[in-house]
Amino acid sequence: MARYRFETTEHELFRKSLRKFLTDEAVPHYEQWEKDKLIPQSFWLKLGEMGFLCPQVDGEYGGLNLDFSFGVIIGEEMERVGAGLTGVGLHNDIVVPYLESYGTPEQKKRWLPGCVTGEYITAVAMTEPGTGSDLANIKTTAIRDGDYYIVNGQKTFITNGIHTNLAVVAVKTNPQERHKGVSLLVIEGDTEGFTKGRKLDKVGMHSQDTAELYFEDCRVPVANLLGEEGKGFTYLMEKLQQERLVVALSAQIASEDMFELTKQYIQERTAFGAKIASFQNTQFKMAEMATKMELGRTFLESLIEEHMAGKDVVTKVSMAKYWITETAREISAECMQLHGGYGYMEEYKIARRYRDIPVMSIYAGTNEIMKVIIAKNLGLS
Amino acid sequence: MARYRFETTEHELFRKSLRKFLTDEAVPHYEQWEKDKLIPQSFWLKLGEMGFLCPQVDGEYGGLNLDFSFGVIIGEEMERVGAGLTGVGLHNDIVVPYLESYGTPEQKKRWLPGCVTGEYITAVAMTEPGTGSDLANIKTTAIRDGDYYIVNGQKTFITNGIHTNLAVVAVKTNPQERHKGVSLLVIEGDTEGFTKGRKLDKVGMHSQDTAELYFEDCRVPVANLLGEEGKGFTYLMEKLQQERLVVALSAQIASEDMFELTKQYIQERTAFGAKIASFQNTQFKMAEMATKMELGRTFLESLIEEHMAGKDVVTKVSMAKYWITETAREISAECMQLHGGYGYMEEYKIARRYRDIPVMSIYAGTNEIMKVIIAKNLGLS
Amino acid sequence: MARYRFETTEHELFRKSLRKFLTDEAVPHYEQWEKDKLIPQSFWLKLGEMGFLCPQVDGEYGGLNLDFSFGVIIGEEMERVGAGLTGVGLHNDIVVPYLESYGTPEQKKRWLPGCVTGEYITAVAMTEPGTGSDLANIKTTAIRDGDYYIVNGQKTFITNGIHTNLAVVAVKTNPQERHKGVSLLVIEGDTEGFTKGRKLDKVGMHSQDTAELYFEDCRVPVANLLGEEGKGFTYLMEKLQQERLVVALSAQIASEDMFELTKQYIQERTAFGAKIASFQNTQFKMAEMATKMELGRTFLESLIEEHMAGKDVVTKVSMAKYWITETAREISAECMQLHGGYGYMEEYKIARRYRDIPVMSIYAGTNEIMKVIIAKNLGLS
Amino acid sequence: MARYRFETTEHELFRKSLRKFLTDEAVPHYEQWEKDKLIPQSFWLKLGEMGFLCPQVDGEYGGLNLDFSFGVIIGEEMERVGAGLTGVGLHNDIVVPYLESYGTPEQKKRWLPGCVTGEYITAVAMTEPGTGSDLANIKTTAIRDGDYYIVNGQKTFITNGIHTNLAVVAVKTNPQERHKGVSLLVIEGDTEGFTKGRKLDKVGMHSQDTAELYFEDCRVPVANLLGEEGKGFTYLMEKLQQERLVVALSAQIASEDMFELTKQYIQERTAFGAKIASFQNTQFKMAEMATKMELGRTFLESLIEEHMAGKDVVTKVSMAKYWITETAREISAECMQLHGGYGYMEEYKIARRYRDIPVMSIYAGTNEIMKVIIAKNLGLS
Repeated sequence: MARYRFETTEHELFRKSLRKFLTDEAVPHYEQWEKDKLIPQSFWLKLGEMGFLCPQVDGEYGGLNLDFSFGVIIGEEMERVGAGLTGVGLHNDIVVPYLESYGTPEQKKRWLPGCVTGEYITAVAMTEPGTGSDLANIKTTAIRDGDYYIVNGQKTFITNGIHTNLAVVAVKTNPQERHKGVSLLVIEGDTEGFTKGRKLDKVGMHSQDTAELYFEDCRVPVANLLGEEGKGFTYLMEKLQQERLVVALSAQIASEDMFELTKQYIQERTAFGAKIASFQNTQFKMAEMATKMELGRTFLESLIEEHMAGKDVVTKVSMAKYWITETAREISAECMQLHGGYGYMEEYKIARRYRDIPVMSIYAGTNEIMKVIIAKNLGLS
Repeated sequence: MARYRFETTEHELFRKSLRKFLTDEAVPHYEQWEKDKLIPQSFWLKLGEMGFLCPQVDGEYGGLNLDFSFGVIIGEEMERVGAGLTGVGLHNDIVVPYLESYGTPEQKKRWLPGCVTGEYITAVAMTEPGTGSDLANIKTTAIRDGDYYIVNGQKTFITNGIHTNLAVVAVKTNPQERHKGVSLLVIEGDTEGFTKGRKLDKVGMHSQDTAELYFEDCRVPVANLLGEEGKGFTYLMEKLQQERLVVALSAQIASEDMFELTKQYIQERTAFGAKIASFQNTQFKMAEMATKMELGRTFLESLIEEHMAGKDVVTKVSMAKYWITETAREISAECMQLHGGYGYMEEYKIARRYRDIPVMSIYAGTNEIMKVIIAKNLGLS
Repeated sequence: MARYRFETTEHELFRKSLRKFLTDEAVPHYEQWEKDKLIPQSFWLKLGEMGFLCPQVDGEYGGLNLDFSFGVIIGEEMERVGAGLTGVGLHNDIVVPYLESYGTPEQKKRWLPGCVTGEYITAVAMTEPGTGSDLANIKTTAIRDGDYYIVNGQKTFITNGIHTNLAVVAVKTNPQERHKGVSLLVIEGDTEGFTKGRKLDKVGMHSQDTAELYFEDCRVPVANLLGEEGKGFTYLMEKLQQERLVVALSAQIASEDMFELTKQYIQERTAFGAKIASFQNTQFKMAEMATKMELGRTFLESLIEEHMAGKDVVTKVSMAKYWITETAREISAECMQLHGGYGYMEEYKIARRYRDIPVMSIYAGTNEIMKVIIAKNLGLS
Repeated sequence: MARYRFETTEHELFRKSLRKFLTDEAVPHYEQWEKDKLIPQSFWLKLGEMGFLCPQVDGEYGGLNLDFSFGVIIGEEMERVGAGLTGVGLHNDIVVPYLESYGTPEQKKRWLPGCVTGEYITAVAMTEPGTGSDLANIKTTAIRDGDYYIVNGQKTFITNGIHTNLAVVAVKTNPQERHKGVSLLVIEGDTEGFTKGRKLDKVGMHSQDTAELYFEDCRVPVANLLGEEGKGFTYLMEKLQQERLVVALSAQIASEDMFELTKQYIQERTAFGAKIASFQNTQFKMAEMATKMELGRTFLESLIEEHMAGKDVVTKVSMAKYWITETAREISAECMQLHGGYGYMEEYKIARRYRDIPVMSIYAGTNEIMKVIIAKNLGLS
């Protein structure tokens, strides 16, 4: 089962135990969750019980002090079940790290233990209607009023939006400024003035809940400010690399899963009296996809190593995010096509994958933004 | 509104009246039909009343004696509303022509008037589980027993399958033979032993009903044989060109609609302080799509003219079917991407189009089969 | 041999006679011309004698009063022999039309007869080192001095540059202005101060002579001004559509020729005991190329008709130029690949085609400029 | 300068000294060699003197006992100068290893020292007119006659063909057999009956000499048999992986060089008043190419490590060979396009690269064969 140079026996056991857990607790229910458009909170609690939530967190707060390599394994195994479980990776590898990096000891004590048990389900709320990936331009304000910030505004496309009871929200504490006016507030679920919109109806990733969040004169204690005022933009940028790496990883796993589904299908089914796998066109398409997946996998492995070693991976992460998600989308189309009419039927898993994939080229920074970053880092402008 | 060299004032009036009708009777209900996964039979009756069903049928049977150019207009206007209306074109341009071409005067008298009014909703049942596009290999048998054929077998992916009460069914009257054993039977909806499976759950084209059909000792009068025994394969091949042309046309319209949706979106929305339409990447993508659509449109126009003039269009139809449907799929991905996160939300029409498109590369003969035909006609083998 | 709806018996005879002429007078020498990097002037005179130079010119000046459809035939037949003959089309359809459209009766009398006989070989000199396609920015000046313009500057990439003895040169008569400062001067070959650089050494199109032109205090009579001062930019823009259409046409013919060469090769040669044509990969690649060529051909036909009918074809010509030249480049790579090692050997014609093709995406306005124009005409900006 | 995890200080010094040598001894002459279509034998002797020929050979025979990682450096640095130097890598990493692996001690003593000094320039002669990559089907025979084999036949596309005085030739010692009839003979340059055809005229790689070899009743001592009779096919297969890896490496270096050339060009030149590098289309194309190169580079690094560790790399080498050479061809077109008209002029290096590249998709096994191998190893058939 090991896939990486960095995997030790410990990783292998971890992966095995996680896969067993998911086979029992997620796979049999996944189709229902897709219909419900929600993963029950009880599943989060089970994950927490087993140690699969935020294993990187310090033991002091209930975590296991494991490094990101275990996050990689969790991300991979979740995606194998289905893209809807992506909210877990978001919680583990993207949102909770904000609390770990920028939280005060008091904040950590308040929130981290619940993040590890699954009592807290976190979200990060950046995007607003109309702003897309342009963070400097957000309209949600947090105006200081004594010991409180008064928050007003609206966020959209928020993963874990329905479940979240602990949201890291990007706000403008100084609306006159652009980047420098952005701060991060941690807003708890029961805060007055914080409400949630309907579950958004998406092309795919149905079980992953996505929602709009509304803040109307929402009073958030100053003690919930994360890090310093005006540094939110910098904080967000710092954590984006890991987020994009996790997205690239999901896309890679999705590709590998689609490839395996297709490989089985073409070896079982016949057309015009011959196995679909026996046609040269099929074989060449499969060879081309296998090649791209091998390239992606090798690149990711190297990237994870560099990221864990603390190197600057901005350019390479942008490359991985753009290329691997785009490749996954192409693979989704090719694999559906090789399934023939069955590929269009929801009872075949490739159908769901086809719907799940295309958002990966969009979220966590569109692929166009990735290219802007790469070009800039190449020194072009 | 006219798009073609062949359009006269009569065509223009026809298109205008149809568009008006659809704006009133289809557009406001389409979203509901998508949810119901069915277009109500009442809509078919309205279409019939207005003269939009099988206008090519002879006046003797209630039709309008119009040529295929009016079918083109109907196909285009239906697709503009949504891909789910594709069943109407199937009825008009694909199934009913079997009755017109191979039916006896008695059969025509029995069935055509109902096809024109919408009392009959037709389907053509070729595909079986496991046979795909390999018609010579079908397993459904029709064994002669006096004045009846006893039909046993199963069909799948049947468009209009739920509604149909008049199905043209490909059967083996001589199971020992391959191509030469295939015959066509017209099986009425209330025939004993003819049942329907559940509506198939598809990635898209939700309102278009697709179903499995079952025949269990189903007794079909010999009088329902269409044309001659053993000629079914030939008949099917003859009508396939028009079917594929209609699919290519739908894909073209879908592309044009997606392009327009995207053009509006990028001109209204901004990113990083500028209209999305103002970025060179956006402009070049749009220019590339516009070019491909113009090529497709021009090719289709020429092809329709040749088809109506009775020329052999097999190679060109195969080219159009493959290239235009593949291009539409690429355009669906590009257009969703240019919508950013909103493109993945079902409330934006591009989301539905993205799900509707990919089956066009598969049905009516996969694009791989199209290439096999083209290569063969190029003299390669 | 007829390819177009607009071809009459007259066209067919014209094509036949031209093909015969080229088979005798060009094909046997073409390889030598490629080595010489020049087509001898004597060939131009023979073309003139046969009526293949500027057949559109008015009978008054020795022409045949034929329309552009004959230019299409000439362009096609020249390209069939080799891309190096492209200079003839440039003379016929691009440069001489400037004289016809903007020349005074006196100028026409002086120059057109020689253009028809081949005594004059024309060129149009726009591009300068460093300006590329940005005409408003040219540095060559023509300063009025009594009855003369004193021309100073340098032009590059000039087709027919070595042979030309009648060049239409874009100059700045008012260097302070951008577009509005551009004028066209006709500069005869023996004008003092007008010299030619070396033949440029290109990747392909060897027999087509391309050179740099130098103007050093070159005194050009005011009587050689073409049209009005300051209108040069407008004149150039007006004629560009026909130039780009001719380039698209050449690329189409090149594609068709490469396809035919490859079709013959794969049907004769074997690999692993089977005809190369018998592999499914080969067949699908051929089917894909054939499809693209059919689309291109149909689009061109429609475009030529619209152009001759005087319609505004700017957008469509830009589409044709970009898509057909890019497709030709892809086809050149695919066809070389299908030839295996032999495709890389100069004794196989595909080798030469591979080298000839890529400049078509660059000259007469790069494909990037074509996309800029299309996007602008789509209303995006 | 170091590029790989496996590079030590020793590698770095080696690379530095080689680059210095090439800067002095190859770069200034390269253009002339391209014109001569030959690299002078004196250059080979200088290489040998400096220790750059076959450094992997055992010290006993004059080599340096270095491993393949130094071959990688040599391959990279040669390709940086120009693709015409590829014959050196062929000698070092492909032909000489046959002698090392299958030669008897006597044979090694006879030949290896000369290979290290450059007195022997080796070639491997597999391909015959009409057989392409189908080795089992070769027609050259070697019939035993006492202590000699009488060799008759013809080889084509032989790299180093003009210079070679020590050719490893694939022959049929048993013409009745297919794979099992193939043996390898070492044929020295002065052997009677062994003659060379003209230098082949290729699209690119001009300085790399390629020729046909003829054997007419050529008497080769039995002592020149390499390894065992009938095992030639197996031997060839074993060495092919390293050959393909070296080709992929060359393609990678070529891509990187083209990218750098283009990067400089677009940052210096302007179009329409702005640096070419400042257009978003340029930036995105560059970002896309940079991404593909990074993927290729990372994959190659991992592959070289696995190859040196003795792992089975057949599938991955086939992937690298196909994908990296195809990517290089696409990059060659993109980079020429970004150069505008200058890219088509031979004085710009991109022009030469464009001509050099496409054969890489063909030789050492066409990319189609690579896909056949990958598909087979995926278990499809």
